[in-house]
This record gives sequence, C-alpha cells and structure tokens, in this order.
Amino acid sequence: MNNQYHIKSRIWIIKDDHTFLGEGRVELLANIDILGSINKAAKAMKMSYQKAWKMIDSMNADANNPLVIKTSGGKQGGGTILTPYGKKVLKLFKTLQKKQHTFLTKELKKLEF
Amino acid sequence: MNNQYHIKSRIWIIKDDHTFLGEGRVELLANIDILGSINKAAKAMKMSYQKAWKMIDSMNADANNPLVIKTSGGKQGGGTILTPYGKKVLKLFKTLQKKQHTFLTKELKKLEF
Repeated sequence: MNNQYHIKSRIWIIKDDHTFLGEGRVELLANIDILGSINKAAKAMKMSYQKAWKMIDSMNADANNPLVIKTSGGKQGGGTILTPYGKKVLKLFKTLQKKQHTFLTKELKKLEF
Repeated sequence: MNNQYHIKSRIWIIKDDHTFLGEGRVELLANIDILGSINKAAKAMKMSYQKAWKMIDSMNADANNPLVIKTSGGKQGGGTILTPYGKKVLKLFKTLQKKQHTFLTKELKKLEF
C-alpha cells in the first residue's frame, strides 16, 4: 500500500469491567519514575494532583502488589516512587506497545487501499 | 498471567496528519452497507446526518477511490451505498481489527503481572 498512510493505536488492559492500565496511566507511571514525585508528574501532564492520585489508587487497588508508594524522610523530604513491581509493569506495557506498533505497521504494509 | 485481565484496543489509519479510518468511521461504513442509507446509518449510531456526511466526505476525499456513493431512482427512490472499493476497505479494516485482537490476546497471556 501507499506509504502516505500510517497506523496509530491505543491499548487498555481491563480488569473485570474497568481500566487497569491505559496509555494515560502508564504515562503517569513513567513520569513518577523520572520525577520521583506525583505532584511533579501530574503537573508535567497538566493533570490535577487529585486526578493523578485517583488513578494511582485505582491501579494500586487492582494490581497484585502496589505499583506506587510514598517515601518519607531523606534529604528531599520524601516523595513518590515506583515499586520494583511498578517498574516491571511499566516495562511490560511499554514493550507491548512497541510489539503492537511493529505488528500493525507490518500488517498495514500488506493492505492495498 | 491471571485470566481476570483482558485487553482492549483501538486502531486509526492516518493519512498525512489526519484520520482516514477509525473505529467510528468504519462502524458508519458497516451501517451504510447494511442499511443502504446514510440517514438510517447515522440514526443507528445516534450521530447527526451532518456529522455522518462530514466523515464520509473526508474518507472519500482521502481514498484513492470513493468509498460511498449516492444512488438515485429505483423503487426505493435512491439511497447511499458502499462502492466495491468501500466494501473492500471495510473488510480490510475489520480483518486488521481481528488480527490485532488475536495478537494482543496472545501477548497478554505471556505477561505476568
């Protein structure tokens, strides 16, 4: 098919009848991992702190283990970090996104519009 | 991974910088194909007739050939139908959705949350 077309996709991982992970939630996890603060991560995404915590609470409640925890003390006076399990889930989702993109790009090339 | 998780996804085919095909547009094509009328198809989707035509115009303009055409005359006094090319594009997209679902379901099973 013509190269002028390309493909875009979004993935959601659903638990029971609601979203466990989606692109926005995973972006929030990635930002917390980089910035070490839910407040900074929310700001970077122009999201309210309340909304960010609501998403984190929902993920933590659905997961087998918490993805995000608060730390206290230390030089910086505490913050919010991903647990090793949170880092693992983030990586799994990112890998799935990449695999899916590769898959769809290959499939798109086979189509003849 | 635990069976309580499942995966959902959406696909968009982009031409240049805008949507050529997406789930809503393809649902509209499918409804036109079944109902033979853009008006009935729009109503079935609770979409305005104007919005439906705007989507069709955009798809027709982007595609190499029109996907949807008006027919006139005949017993029913004309209607709106998919061209053979429109039927082909509809089928290609539906097939892609199915392949993608199979792919993601298989990938999800490999993950261990």
